[in-house]
Amino acid sequence: MATETLNAEIRRLTVIILFCIKFNSLFCQQFIISFQTISDCAVGHFYDVSGLSCVKCGPNQRASVTGLTCVCRPGYRVLTTNGASLTCQQCPPNFPAVAEDGFGCIRCAGGLSEEGTCLCPQGTVRVERDIQGNPLEEARCDACNGDDPAFSVPNNNGDSCERCQASFVNTSRSCVCTAPNVLAGGLCFPPNNLPSNVNPNVNFAELALPVQSAWFLKNLYSTSSACLVFTNLTACQALGNMCVMNMHSFSSVSNDACGLFNLIFRSMAALGTTQDISYWRTNLPWLYYGDQPGLAGRVLQTDPLPIEFSFKGSKKNTAIKLISAVYDVRGEFLRWENTSGGSLQLCPDTAVKQREAYTFGTAYQESCDMLVSELLRAYPEPLFYDVFVDLSQGEALPVPSLILNQQYNGRYVNQENMKNWYLSRRMFLVDTLSGREKSLSSQPKVIRVAANIKLRFQLVPGTQKGQVFPPLLSVSYKDVFLRDLATQTVSVSFAVEYEMDQNEARMKTDTALGVMGGLAVLYSLLKTVSWKRRISSPLVDMETMLKFLLFYAGDLANVFFCITVGTGLYWLIFSKAQQYVSVLLPLRAQEERMVTYIGCAFALKAIQFLHKLILQLSVDIFLIDWERPRSKASRTVHASGDPKRDPSPVSIWRTYFVANEWNEIQTIRKISPTFQVMAVLFFLEVVGFSNLALRDPWSTLERPPQAYMPPYSLTLRYGLASTLWLCIGLLQVVFFTVFHERFVEDKIRQFVDLCSISNISVLLLSHRCFGYYIHGRSVHGHADTNMEEMNTNLKREAESLCGQRGLLPNTDTQTFQVSLSSRLRQQYDRIREPLSRRNGPSRLVDASSANPFEQSTRAYNTMNRFLGSVIDHAHRDMDYIVKDKLFFERVIGMEFLEPNDKSIFYNDESHSFSDVLFYGNEATLLIFDTLFFCVVDLGSQSFVLAAILTYVQQMIFCWIRSALGRRNLASKTLVDERFLI
Amino acid sequence: MATETLNAEIRRLTVIILFCIKFNSLFCQQFIISFQTISDCAVGHFYDVSGLSCVKCGPNQRASVTGLTCVCRPGYRVLTTNGASLTCQQCPPNFPAVAEDGFGCIRCAGGLSEEGTCLCPQGTVRVERDIQGNPLEEARCDACNGDDPAFSVPNNNGDSCERCQASFVNTSRSCVCTAPNVLAGGLCFPPNNLPSNVNPNVNFAELALPVQSAWFLKNLYSTSSACLVFTNLTACQALGNMCVMNMHSFSSVSNDACGLFNLIFRSMAALGTTQDISYWRTNLPWLYYGDQPGLAGRVLQTDPLPIEFSFKGSKKNTAIKLISAVYDVRGEFLRWENTSGGSLQLCPDTAVKQREAYTFGTAYQESCDMLVSELLRAYPEPLFYDVFVDLSQGEALPVPSLILNQQYNGRYVNQENMKNWYLSRRMFLVDTLSGREKSLSSQPKVIRVAANIKLRFQLVPGTQKGQVFPPLLSVSYKDVFLRDLATQTVSVSFAVEYEMDQNEARMKTDTALGVMGGLAVLYSLLKTVSWKRRISSPLVDMETMLKFLLFYAGDLANVFFCITVGTGLYWLIFSKAQQYVSVLLPLRAQEERMVTYIGCAFALKAIQFLHKLILQLSVDIFLIDWERPRSKASRTVHASGDPKRDPSPVSIWRTYFVANEWNEIQTIRKISPTFQVMAVLFFLEVVGFSNLALRDPWSTLERPPQAYMPPYSLTLRYGLASTLWLCIGLLQVVFFTVFHERFVEDKIRQFVDLCSISNISVLLLSHRCFGYYIHGRSVHGHADTNMEEMNTNLKREAESLCGQRGLLPNTDTQTFQVSLSSRLRQQYDRIREPLSRRNGPSRLVDASSANPFEQSTRAYNTMNRFLGSVIDHAHRDMDYIVKDKLFFERVIGMEFLEPNDKSIFYNDESHSFSDVLFYGNEATLLIFDTLFFCVVDLGSQSFVLAAILTYVQQMIFCWIRSALGRRNLASKTLVDERFLI
Repeated sequence: MATETLNAEIRRLTVIILFCIKFNSLFCQQFIISFQTISDCAVGHFYDVSGLSCVKCGPNQRASVTGLTCVCRPGYRVLTTNGASLTCQQCPPNFPAVAEDGFGCIRCAGGLSEEGTCLCPQGTVRVERDIQGNPLEEARCDACNGDDPAFSVPNNNGDSCERCQASFVNTSRSCVCTAPNVLAGGLCFPPNNLPSNVNPNVNFAELALPVQSAWFLKNLYSTSSACLVFTNLTACQALGNMCVMNMHSFSSVSNDACGLFNLIFRSMAALGTTQDISYWRTNLPWLYYGDQPGLAGRVLQTDPLPIEFSFKGSKKNTAIKLISAVYDVRGEFLRWENTSGGSLQLCPDTAVKQREAYTFGTAYQESCDMLVSELLRAYPEPLFYDVFVDLSQGEALPVPSLILNQQYNGRYVNQENMKNWYLSRRMFLVDTLSGREKSLSSQPKVIRVAANIKLRFQLVPGTQKGQVFPPLLSVSYKDVFLRDLATQTVSVSFAVEYEMDQNEARMKTDTALGVMGGLAVLYSLLKTVSWKRRISSPLVDMETMLKFLLFYAGDLANVFFCITVGTGLYWLIFSKAQQYVSVLLPLRAQEERMVTYIGCAFALKAIQFLHKLILQLSVDIFLIDWERPRSKASRTVHASGDPKRDPSPVSIWRTYFVANEWNEIQTIRKISPTFQVMAVLFFLEVVGFSNLALRDPWSTLERPPQAYMPPYSLTLRYGLASTLWLCIGLLQVVFFTVFHERFVEDKIRQFVDLCSISNISVLLLSHRCFGYYIHGRSVHGHADTNMEEMNTNLKREAESLCGQRGLLPNTDTQTFQVSLSSRLRQQYDRIREPLSRRNGPSRLVDASSANPFEQSTRAYNTMNRFLGSVIDHAHRDMDYIVKDKLFFERVIGMEFLEPNDKSIFYNDESHSFSDVLFYGNEATLLIFDTLFFCVVDLGSQSFVLAAILTYVQQMIFCWIRSALGRRNLASKTLVDERFLI
Repeated sequence: MATETLNAEIRRLTVIILFCIKFNSLFCQQFIISFQTISDCAVGHFYDVSGLSCVKCGPNQRASVTGLTCVCRPGYRVLTTNGASLTCQQCPPNFPAVAEDGFGCIRCAGGLSEEGTCLCPQGTVRVERDIQGNPLEEARCDACNGDDPAFSVPNNNGDSCERCQASFVNTSRSCVCTAPNVLAGGLCFPPNNLPSNVNPNVNFAELALPVQSAWFLKNLYSTSSACLVFTNLTACQALGNMCVMNMHSFSSVSNDACGLFNLIFRSMAALGTTQDISYWRTNLPWLYYGDQPGLAGRVLQTDPLPIEFSFKGSKKNTAIKLISAVYDVRGEFLRWENTSGGSLQLCPDTAVKQREAYTFGTAYQESCDMLVSELLRAYPEPLFYDVFVDLSQGEALPVPSLILNQQYNGRYVNQENMKNWYLSRRMFLVDTLSGREKSLSSQPKVIRVAANIKLRFQLVPGTQKGQVFPPLLSVSYKDVFLRDLATQTVSVSFAVEYEMDQNEARMKTDTALGVMGGLAVLYSLLKTVSWKRRISSPLVDMETMLKFLLFYAGDLANVFFCITVGTGLYWLIFSKAQQYVSVLLPLRAQEERMVTYIGCAFALKAIQFLHKLILQLSVDIFLIDWERPRSKASRTVHASGDPKRDPSPVSIWRTYFVANEWNEIQTIRKISPTFQVMAVLFFLEVVGFSNLALRDPWSTLERPPQAYMPPYSLTLRYGLASTLWLCIGLLQVVFFTVFHERFVEDKIRQFVDLCSISNISVLLLSHRCFGYYIHGRSVHGHADTNMEEMNTNLKREAESLCGQRGLLPNTDTQTFQVSLSSRLRQQYDRIREPLSRRNGPSRLVDASSANPFEQSTRAYNTMNRFLGSVIDHAHRDMDYIVKDKLFFERVIGMEFLEPNDKSIFYNDESHSFSDVLFYGNEATLLIFDTLFFCVVDLGSQSFVLAAILTYVQQMIFCWIRSALGRRNLASKTLVDERFLI
């Protein structure tokens, strides 16, 4: 057994090797076949469809026309057939011709054809068998009787007589079309008034290429005659189709397709109209609406469709039911077709997606590049569509179409103003027929494709019931000159748009803008006045104007922001939540105003933000150390100018500590900005909120992957992103103020506490005569002590064994807004002078001369003592009073009393000194971030990029604030930058 | 003029109003038509295609069969036709019948049909005109002569005799099929050995529903007989197609399609084979490969295709040229078709995308839900495809197909092991024919769809030239029972897969894993030994084992990480950069191991990370204050236990400052983790790196929106994400260490500087007897001083007017690793005892008893003095030496010398004390983050979600480290938590 297998194997291998040697093939593989097509077969070979190769025919045989079988050569008859095998025998000389069935030999009365069969002259029929089927010895040629009453001509096969075409009988009472009758397209016409020199050219205007069309040449005259003379319905449709293939273009010339159509249209006026529509003549297709100026507007914007669209609820109705009557190029009516099957959509896609085009409210946009070869294959002949809206109950409304390429006396009227539009009916998708020049079977020179089809719905203004005007089907054809079939493509698109008149919305927006803009001017004026008072300068100068503009920029930014967010939110809510359709999203072109507003809001907000940043970076700050040396002698020793001898100088480390902490809280915010970015990104991209910005009426967050994705609406994207950003921001603010600062950590309160514990007060001057004061005088007298005492102090305070921390006795208020009198400020400036001359503390490396360094130290000490004494009411002429701010003062952010004589300290429990930090300007920062995020998103249509850039922006500004703020702090407090870490 | 327009307008309105009143319609709209279809037309009405409505026919007329025109009623002849109008006239009683052409009246020899024409008996022809076309007065019925030599029968029209079908002549020498010959399917067969009781059932096995198919019933016997008896090529193909429609299933029963095919196959053995392929008999289609076990493997994995695929360079060749011979269901050969036109792809899509399926190396996967109604419309009859690989130069290789539903004696062999596979040829896409039960025009009961088609290429192992084995076409059919045509869908898919044998790669991975795992054991052992030494414990106990396992987890995580990243990078580089195809990406099923490894790496890394975190949170730290009171008296006074009398206690604020800074640097890292997340997200999602993870050979970052998007490869996603994460991490580390820390800010160096300036040393004990020491003794003797002196000190130091900061005289080294002797540690512990008893410093609120509070303060002071004196070499028995660490000691991270007698201080310029901070563990953190990111991405396939979760993870761990680290710091240094802000 094994030997046998072995032998078989050896034999197999030997065969393979022999085969390899024999064919000397590079690859010796088992299953490679030689691959031939029918056109590869040589003469005398047929294509064996089972073996997929060419096989030689038997003797006296040749391949049939298809090439798939063998037939006998001319002059040979079939002797036997046994399945695939065939034997042929030469016909004897006395019966030289082969009968039609191929099995018999026959004598001919007439000549012999090339195929070896008998020939009969024109007008005669060839008879090879008698009536009973018995073969004749000689084939007869019998003439058909063409006269009344026989009226017969040979049939197509030429083997029997049949009645000739009715038009011959009608026109010339015989089967010959005699003059003056006209023979055209196989019909016989009586003389008529149609121009006989019809223009068979199709003008491919886009390419400036007129092509003499084989189809027009063959059929234009005959169809128009048949339509006019015989009222042949099919011919009329075919003529109309030729006009449609010419893109409805017509001029004064009347011998082209549309000219002929209109000629016939006019001449048929007497027959009346179809369905009471004056543009639709009986027996003719409806191709044109009238050419009265302004008719388009009346047709499109007068009467609403008797359909009420509704997105939700029991009466939900979003189905747009379009049907079309489909005709072929010959004018035959084929069928009624539901367009939701994708019949107007050239781009291939799944039925589920294509159907979405006909869901009311879902903006649909599909475009693709189609291979020209594919179009040629799929559309050998054009189909023509008459589109209607199915109103159900047996009624339908014709959809007017706007052919953008249509020429009217040489003008592209449909690309002009709506008043000039010339609406029409009937369209085609792909026409590969009219561009065939030589014959109908040749390859076309040019094809014409409906490259952009757009269905536009317009909402009835003010409707609450979802009514729309009749839709408009706008079509733009494209002429494609065929060059390279294999790779040439043409881009096509299909879109459904929904439009509403935005004038009312625009007017409302403008009104809001005007009103709020006016209020913003008032508010900015108020701010300017307040600012003037705080810098204690009564003059109105350039700086005041500039300041006003800066304030106005901020307020105007807020106005723009409110309006845009409001608009976005309005669209978001109304377009997604409405039941009956009452609003439709603005189109891309209608969104330009909104985009401009957002841009303004962002630019103005950026100005405000930079202004605030610069102000914060130049704020005046001084740390007042209340600590006094323990030994009484120290002050005198100190005054002698030799501080090193002082046995116990007041330690500077508390000041360092406070300055360090102040440096750290400069950039903290009420929210975590990075978390904000991440959270927004999470909701938009992961949870799927971004799907809410799609141009459709649905508010589901998750879309199945196979569902159609409409394009995004800029307005919705902005509304969604800004709302989400603000909401998450507010949630964060609430979380941080209500929970985090109360139970975890409140950096601002910690700083105030620290001041008190470290016996250091902080005076912040944000304006020349206005600022903030944090009272930090220790209730224990000394803070510069060791651990035991510190802990004891802390414990005593916790047990309320000592006084309260407030500036006034028995109060707790440590933080104040201060309005300084000018005199105090002058004194302050005088002491500060040596500091400001050398900007910043001495650095180790560049302190070559000790002079300025010593000067500034002295100034520091002077300032410390001066401010301490002012707070202690030691200066009569620079005294101050403490009072509460009025409610109204708080609201408008301005002080009514002028600190002429005495400075005024306003109690301020709400730590408003944080206004000179990021912390107190959360609103500005949040809005700025929101606008930054939205502007990047509008530009790039990518939430991810917007999030990343917003993060980078936050980091950059945070870094700038922190680095420059640190430098400012060092220069104003004389604390070395090395301690601000 | 204006009046005219006005009048016209008034007239128009009047007409409209009248129209409205007349029709009393709800909606008064201009252009609503009544919409009818052909089927709406009543009897006697025809459908006017120009008016799209039903119109009544003239008198004596009725609608034609199509319903689009009118014809005369039976018994009426056409009198005149004038275009659309027709007049009919009743035939006179003596000529009661209407002639065939409808224009004449005639007498009948036989009866009268319902249509009013003459009837002739079977086998006779009706003659109404003579040979010349003259109408006869009476129609004749002439019998056809069926005998030799006439062999004639009536033609289809029944109006002339023609030669009868050849099989009748051959079989029974007459036009009647006489017994024992068999008449079937219009052919006459001689008696043969085919079973006459063929089984016309198609078994829809999935539904367990056998359907008696009208097609099989009509054609099965006749085609098999014609194939066997007459060797009719088309009949043989048609029989083969019926077997294919049965999904190639066959059993011992020989009267179903495949059984008959095999019967004929065997009986035709003598005729030889086609193209030297033994499974392909002459005249028969090739349906089966042999049924020898293991043949499939030999066919699929023996010889490579003679094509070399290459992705780049001058020899770039990625075109998979598949061609198919297409047959219709009747067995006619239709054409050779290029499959790249999408002929095997049921899902509609653009040609550009569908062509991508045949680009070698691009994994293709397209699936969709097809409407059943759409399939019925597009595929009225099935087409059959014989698929070949076009090798060019006239050669082709048949592609074997694997029909997953194929049953072989009742077993689904093709769903079993490859050894049992039974390969076949020929497939169809949609069969709506075999499920028709009653007649061929009825609606099918069931349709059969090739729901899953997969083309699989397998790379030749070890090829460097891009050679592949013959592809396999696996097909899975689905039977769909028709219920609801309008909505029923069937999901179909088409995929092209590329596979290579991954055993070698797997083996290499396993080897690497083994080797590196072994090394990891050694390294972990070393670490354990080092740890034992550092805690100065010689015992090997459970804790040691646990510690070893923890170390091992970390090292093993690194091993897994290296291997997975290496693998990912390998695939990324090789699959994207190879010129000749030598590797192909692992399939989803082959990736499971990789996913497991990544999971292991992540889990182990998490363990290591948590371990390090816990260690860092329990580190021992003490701040040694070198400052001594200025007045000499203070120490004695202090010793008396009444510190409050001390006139100038040493201020604690420097300690607070240092502790505060230490608290702040706990969580700083060598990179910015949020920037890391953002940068990775930017590159992946915005720049488009994620496109590199697509399963294709291209390395372009941007894909046009209309291009095909292949599915993602998990391996590539992991390789890409981890590499990108590591690269950006490394770039950040380089940026921060080379640029930022040198030119902007180095937090670690700042801390060391601060220690020195503030006269405070830090002792950190990470193990019992091992830790770090930062020497901060001020070179100026005192740091607790005022601003003048501080500035003077700083200036002096900058000008090098004072000593150096190092521990040893004239050195700069401030940072040390310390190995403590056990005695020193015991003393340390003894002093610390009161501290550890009360965990944490006294809080103001709960310090009810002063005792523990005072104890701890005393312990603090004692510790301060003790450690200071140790550093000052004041304790003979607890002395230390300073030395450099050996290079080898540094490398393996272990000390060779045991600190038995004296403690050892190793110089440590590299600030390795940051090992107890996040800062010193950047590698672990970076790898943990990388793995976290990748694991989330593998689970969710979303880089955005991964980025967001990674950010959240970083925040959480950072917060834990910072909050617990702060608590630990407070408890160990006795600094109140309120100062750690």
